[in-house]
Amino acid sequence: MTAKMNYPEKKILVVREMEVQMVPCAIPYVFGPTLGSSEKNIASCGKADEMGIENLVAKVEEVDIDGKIAYTPTHRIDFDKVVFATGSIPFVHASLEPSLALDGVFTVPKNKELIDKAKKYCDSVTDIVVVGTGFIGVEMAMELRESGKNVTLLGGSPHIFKGIFDREIAAQAEEILSSQGITFIGGDRVAAILDRNGDNIVDAVQLESGTIIDTQAVILATGYKPNTELAEKAGLPLGDYGGVVVDEYMRTKNGDVFAIGDCSARRGFITREPSKVMLASTSAAEGRVAGSSLYSLKYMKKFNGTIAIFSTIVGDTVFASAGITEEDALRNGGEIVVGSFNGVNRHPSTIPGAQSQFVKLVAMRHGGQIIGGQVVGGNEAGEMINIIGLMIENNMTIYQVMSIQVATHPMLTAAPTSYPIVMAASMTANAMEK
Amino acid sequence: MTAKMNYPEKKILVVREMEVQMVPCAIPYVFGPTLGSSEKNIASCGKADEMGIENLVAKVEEVDIDGKIAYTPTHRIDFDKVVFATGSIPFVHASLEPSLALDGVFTVPKNKELIDKAKKYCDSVTDIVVVGTGFIGVEMAMELRESGKNVTLLGGSPHIFKGIFDREIAAQAEEILSSQGITFIGGDRVAAILDRNGDNIVDAVQLESGTIIDTQAVILATGYKPNTELAEKAGLPLGDYGGVVVDEYMRTKNGDVFAIGDCSARRGFITREPSKVMLASTSAAEGRVAGSSLYSLKYMKKFNGTIAIFSTIVGDTVFASAGITEEDALRNGGEIVVGSFNGVNRHPSTIPGAQSQFVKLVAMRHGGQIIGGQVVGGNEAGEMINIIGLMIENNMTIYQVMSIQVATHPMLTAAPTSYPIVMAASMTANAMEK
Repeated sequence: MTAKMNYPEKKILVVREMEVQMVPCAIPYVFGPTLGSSEKNIASCGKADEMGIENLVAKVEEVDIDGKIAYTPTHRIDFDKVVFATGSIPFVHASLEPSLALDGVFTVPKNKELIDKAKKYCDSVTDIVVVGTGFIGVEMAMELRESGKNVTLLGGSPHIFKGIFDREIAAQAEEILSSQGITFIGGDRVAAILDRNGDNIVDAVQLESGTIIDTQAVILATGYKPNTELAEKAGLPLGDYGGVVVDEYMRTKNGDVFAIGDCSARRGFITREPSKVMLASTSAAEGRVAGSSLYSLKYMKKFNGTIAIFSTIVGDTVFASAGITEEDALRNGGEIVVGSFNGVNRHPSTIPGAQSQFVKLVAMRHGGQIIGGQVVGGNEAGEMINIIGLMIENNMTIYQVMSIQVATHPMLTAAPTSYPIVMAASMTANAMEK
Repeated sequence: MTAKMNYPEKKILVVREMEVQMVPCAIPYVFGPTLGSSEKNIASCGKADEMGIENLVAKVEEVDIDGKIAYTPTHRIDFDKVVFATGSIPFVHASLEPSLALDGVFTVPKNKELIDKAKKYCDSVTDIVVVGTGFIGVEMAMELRESGKNVTLLGGSPHIFKGIFDREIAAQAEEILSSQGITFIGGDRVAAILDRNGDNIVDAVQLESGTIIDTQAVILATGYKPNTELAEKAGLPLGDYGGVVVDEYMRTKNGDVFAIGDCSARRGFITREPSKVMLASTSAAEGRVAGSSLYSLKYMKKFNGTIAIFSTIVGDTVFASAGITEEDALRNGGEIVVGSFNGVNRHPSTIPGAQSQFVKLVAMRHGGQIIGGQVVGGNEAGEMINIIGLMIENNMTIYQVMSIQVATHPMLTAAPTSYPIVMAASMTANAMEK
């Protein structure tokens, strides 16, 4: 769409493997009462169609970079410019890959047909093990639980949301999961997926500790990896985590060849190291950059690396995070200071629906730049984290944040006198002096 | 509280006229079902008390600046530093002031006793006229309507929310008011408040057009003015709209005398002209600046003028605005470009509770700095406007915003591919080229 807006005279063709595409981040909600069906999770392409963007449903099997030709089984497509946007596919540890052949063992791919199959299977059983405690794993566990299943959530780390939230915040989310009747087992890895009576149907999971958990289905939500088979075949160099190597404008070394989204290699905004973070919002931003840079560098690119910026809802509580956690900053040798504030998301607190709102900030000890933030609160936390994200992108310091101007309203936000982002900045400034 | 944090060894005394202080912005909600009583709208000072801040309930009648003494009827208070934080009081046009003596005519002061009186009176009648179409007037009208009153809302301008929203957006709010059964009459001013049978009870309002509206009560929500009687008596110079003149660190010419909040004179962030905007959030920011600058300039102040930044909820729809509107920018001779985008606040749009989300941005034609934004959407718009506010404070351009990184989540935000703030920036960039 950005390409068409910027180069309206060009013919833009999207070649996609599947007729119908789901909204990726809403896939867990297909499994429970929130959406209840993949039919309710279809990504609309109406605007692209209106703009005159063409579509071809086909699998590209080869791209001849030098000849500027892409081949599907039935078409030969000549191009001036090509953008690889092949996304990501589920990552499963090699030792567990053979178990994918068992009935009742599923990953969470961005593929409607496969999701429909997994959903139908889950509907037919009562005991389900979810492996993986990132957002997709936790959201799958919650939706399956809301559908009345007995759910066990397994994670290799002691706490869920590793690298996204500090442990004291993750622990709050774990408490909510527990109150919903989800069994969380952390700090133990899956050693094997078992089919003890040899009927090719999963019946248990064995952990490294020896624990055996009987189950009727296993969902492996153990992450994603760049889908770069096609790019690799075309001879494009891949980066550290397997993504296509690109510059700030999403160009490969060949100026006519771009890669965007989860199939591209990324660097962290703060650590400058290769990043495994895969986010639709970052991908969309990359798409906008590439779309406006196809034939010339039209706009100066503001960002330079991926800020991990996430949100989710656990029970009625939103957990959101931007940048780096305290734990990861310390692990990277960061000289940091943290500050936090616990307030209320309405004012006065007697306003109906008021709930607590917590903000934690991580700042550089020297200079005070904000490099991370975590918010726990009501639905508004989903946008508050974008305020913190913008502070990180703009290299703002806690000293600047202490006097920012914000809109507050009794029915919508915390009180102006104790707006938690500002108060957390003050607390961080205070902690600096100790 | 900031002063105590920064200068813990100092004795901090707050002298206040009233034992109990209401949350100012929630006063309209006392009049309807949302809070229902001023008892539910008490501002807590618990944290200040915990920090060891002292209190005196008394009216300061004189401040001797040179002698560094404040006098109440019963106390003499010696000080090193004094901060005027006397706030604002209702503004009523001189021609209507005598009518305040009639039974049934009220303003909306930040005074619990007077609000209780007005609320009791409103509860006893059925027909009420609200004069003034800023936030307080509109919110009063809605709450009174929700209590079952017949409400007529009068404004001198053709549209409500003058200077805060462009007319096409204000018109959306007017439609919601109308659907709730509120009668809005715009573009006509109150010529007189009538007591036709001379019993000292209001019985009608006469407009400049000649229209007479029978009523049992009149609420004058026609703005506020700085409460500077005490400061003026102390000899402090007042600025254009009557506020105490201060520098960027809230100091008067006398470095031991500060003024913060609605009683101080303000300048607009964008136009640099004197500003009448009175906001609790701006006041709180000023309080933090003064509190940390009492004995030394501790932190560099980030902001330089008041960004008008507001939010409110009309029916189930949030209206929020930051910076300058398109109309006001054009009136100021601004060479501007606008762009807008209409999306949905969840993704996919089948997520329960999804509602439309609209963003409009106003940017400088040369350079593309964002100088204003308006959001219409669900509750999340209350924090989205703070994202736009931060863009304005940071002098961000639409070109930078086109590639910002945001967190998105199906249950909490718009889709990453069509996040309305980013899309509105793209639309503005597009409009630049025309």
